[in-house]
Amino acid sequence: MAPFHREDAPILLLFIALVLVIVAGLDAENIGDGGSELFGEILRDEVVERINQLAEISDADGYLERTFLSPASMRAAELIIKWMQDAGLRTWVDQMGNVHGRIESVNKTERTLLIGSHFDTVVDAGKFDGSLGIISAISALKALKISGKLLKLKRPVEIIAFSDEEGVRFQSTFLGSAAIAGQLPASMLNTSDKNGVTIQDVLKENSFQGSVRSLLQVKYDPESVWGYVEVHIEQGPVLESLGYPLGIVQGIAGQTRLKVQVTGSQGHAGTVPMLMRQDPMTAAAELIVNLESLCKYPDRVFTYNEQCGYYSKESFSGLVCTVGEISAWPSASNVIPSQVNFTVDVRAMDDVAREVVISEFSHQIYQICDNRMVNCTIESKHNADAVHCDSELRLQLKQAAHSTMKNLRRKINGEVPLLMSGAGHDAIAMSHLTKVGMVFVRCRGGISHSPQEYVTDDDVWAAVLALIDFLLDQHIISDHMSS
Amino acid sequence: MAPFHREDAPILLLFIALVLVIVAGLDAENIGDGGSELFGEILRDEVVERINQLAEISDADGYLERTFLSPASMRAAELIIKWMQDAGLRTWVDQMGNVHGRIESVNKTERTLLIGSHFDTVVDAGKFDGSLGIISAISALKALKISGKLLKLKRPVEIIAFSDEEGVRFQSTFLGSAAIAGQLPASMLNTSDKNGVTIQDVLKENSFQGSVRSLLQVKYDPESVWGYVEVHIEQGPVLESLGYPLGIVQGIAGQTRLKVQVTGSQGHAGTVPMLMRQDPMTAAAELIVNLESLCKYPDRVFTYNEQCGYYSKESFSGLVCTVGEISAWPSASNVIPSQVNFTVDVRAMDDVAREVVISEFSHQIYQICDNRMVNCTIESKHNADAVHCDSELRLQLKQAAHSTMKNLRRKINGEVPLLMSGAGHDAIAMSHLTKVGMVFVRCRGGISHSPQEYVTDDDVWAAVLALIDFLLDQHIISDHMSS
Repeated sequence: MAPFHREDAPILLLFIALVLVIVAGLDAENIGDGGSELFGEILRDEVVERINQLAEISDADGYLERTFLSPASMRAAELIIKWMQDAGLRTWVDQMGNVHGRIESVNKTERTLLIGSHFDTVVDAGKFDGSLGIISAISALKALKISGKLLKLKRPVEIIAFSDEEGVRFQSTFLGSAAIAGQLPASMLNTSDKNGVTIQDVLKENSFQGSVRSLLQVKYDPESVWGYVEVHIEQGPVLESLGYPLGIVQGIAGQTRLKVQVTGSQGHAGTVPMLMRQDPMTAAAELIVNLESLCKYPDRVFTYNEQCGYYSKESFSGLVCTVGEISAWPSASNVIPSQVNFTVDVRAMDDVAREVVISEFSHQIYQICDNRMVNCTIESKHNADAVHCDSELRLQLKQAAHSTMKNLRRKINGEVPLLMSGAGHDAIAMSHLTKVGMVFVRCRGGISHSPQEYVTDDDVWAAVLALIDFLLDQHIISDHMSS
Repeated sequence: MAPFHREDAPILLLFIALVLVIVAGLDAENIGDGGSELFGEILRDEVVERINQLAEISDADGYLERTFLSPASMRAAELIIKWMQDAGLRTWVDQMGNVHGRIESVNKTERTLLIGSHFDTVVDAGKFDGSLGIISAISALKALKISGKLLKLKRPVEIIAFSDEEGVRFQSTFLGSAAIAGQLPASMLNTSDKNGVTIQDVLKENSFQGSVRSLLQVKYDPESVWGYVEVHIEQGPVLESLGYPLGIVQGIAGQTRLKVQVTGSQGHAGTVPMLMRQDPMTAAAELIVNLESLCKYPDRVFTYNEQCGYYSKESFSGLVCTVGEISAWPSASNVIPSQVNFTVDVRAMDDVAREVVISEFSHQIYQICDNRMVNCTIESKHNADAVHCDSELRLQLKQAAHSTMKNLRRKINGEVPLLMSGAGHDAIAMSHLTKVGMVFVRCRGGISHSPQEYVTDDDVWAAVLALIDFLLDQHIISDHMSS
């Protein structure tokens, strides 16, 4: 198929509308059964076009940047509302700037299925992070509307486009989803950005109330919610390496962030003999090498005791450790530094495993620093336990992804992969409210938070179709039930 | 003895002058034979007072900074000239701002012994670096003058206070001594500081000619020079650890400076599994650990072949390797860096040994980077061969230091230590002109280039006395010769 150009949009939209009318009229039952290649392709192209359209709404010239309640964010919200209404949803914006689109079910007492992702971005962002989850959900419901199934929903379905997940402006993640989950303390309203403007100021500037009371109103009652599902780009290289477009998230890793400070004895690079040095640089290097080895080959360090059940071999699956920042003082090529600081980021699905890794690494730090006669301090900067996706939701999403692959007649080896999410997502905040499930979509080279972020059109299509399949299989009153 | 206060200076100087007159009159022959404790103490206190006085001449408020031909440098030169004249020397300033003080010998055909060090400083400097060598030489000649021996010199003796060794302003070391040794290319006159002011501009501003011709006039004829001797603080911890106030320098280490750039694959700290990473940070850490091991234990890597004579076990004595600077990009705690750069500084007395270390390290860099699938480049920034001190001068200085210890009745274990100088000195430039010898003076904690730089008054005294002993033993026409 020829590449799609923006200037073709009006013609294409007319074509889509025409085809949809024909398809809806002729064969309203063909979604999800693999029978309609054309219908699928139209959905794919519309979703891709909308992702491109949303990516053009930016506060910056030449690159994508949309932070919490920025002018571009407000314009993006308007567009999302338009798309939600086009899908037959009732829309509103809550007091934290989250955009909601809801369709009620036949059964008034059923709890709500929430589907969401975020529409804020990092600075110089890619176009799929967040947007893919919102737009694919809207198009999935639009497809149900077209095929006449939107009014046969077993439970209310609500899409939420969250106003802040990246936390660029206020250095605090999940402002949107945490408010809905009731996890945002009222004191957060007083958090300032680097210009001293508070969250409360920004809310009021944009005609929100910005009061403690209005913040509390955003919170959902857990009793009213059935579960939360999110489609997101993987932001890592696993699916690409496995050759699979979709993966099901087992859980979101717990995280510990440390700052390690190594202090030695500053000296002239030429005058202090090797055996008389107290060099924080070589000490830091040894610590970094040890940390890598610990996380790459945990089985070489930790002996498993199946009987005690303390941790198993699987505990360490998905364990990742990163040193992303390092600095030396005074930082001159001919001076042995007096101080070297570095950051440590450790993530794992198993909280106990993460704790034993941190404990073992801390032990190694003190031992190595002692041997080298340098002084080491470890400062804990952040600790968050892992979030486990609901096993039932995982299974349902896995079945949906499997059916999609079958319907698309894709040649796929093996089962739909189960992945850990090392990155944080709105699902972390939402897990405090309800059970959560996530679908990951393959991205090129594992690249994210970059304009190079890329998902193929076909993989976008697979994501929307899997979401439709999940809704059809689980949340639609089947014909024999409704008859 | 009570601590010396600045406000006591006039009284003390009067006292010194009085005592010197008495001592000179009563016992002009007692220098160097250990017979005059009082005379030694006066010399010690005067030298220490002058070191303090020179340290107060600074371009900065609150700390010591004197760069090439700065206002403070010009004032320092005036004071040094005054002291030289006080020691009975004929003085002048050459066209590169070096200050000279000379005494001719009885024998008109003998070549000149040069003694020197620098009077420029680093930023926030200590007070002994450079100054100690100039002031101790002036006081040694002053003592000869007082004892009536200055006119019995076997050869002319000239003290040179060099105008630039640290190279702070023009990022080029040895402007003063290199000009005298004929090692300063005329093109250097066009070198600019960070404000775009050239060396030529600075020379002209200070009433020097600043021409290629005037630069050439600074150069000494090697045939006119017998040798060069320098007293300098050690700037390292070896003498302190050996419990010895003075050491004799074997040579000044050769130096190689490299910049190593490691480029990997940037990624999210949470999403890229350990086994799929191309992490330049852990690669750099492994390289730094390997470099340290190579330089700390070269015998574990290099097998000695005595027959081939390629290098011996002693080749690696004094080998030091330092990583002083490191930086990561993009430098965020939750991002696997795409690039890590670090500097490497390798110094050794044996040039072949230094070359095999660099060659082996380069080999390890490429091997480790290959294994880790990261890209490594090595840029050579600087290469200088070692300078070996003259064996005859070394022996004479060693004997002088030994006699001094005996005369001072210091309890010293073992022989006067022989040291390598890992730091560069004016002697490097002067070695292109003549044979060189250096005496190191113990400093506290090996600290230099810092206001914490410290030499005890007694160690200053030992340095002056050793210089006097060296002059008496080698360069004075002994009584039986002159009779």
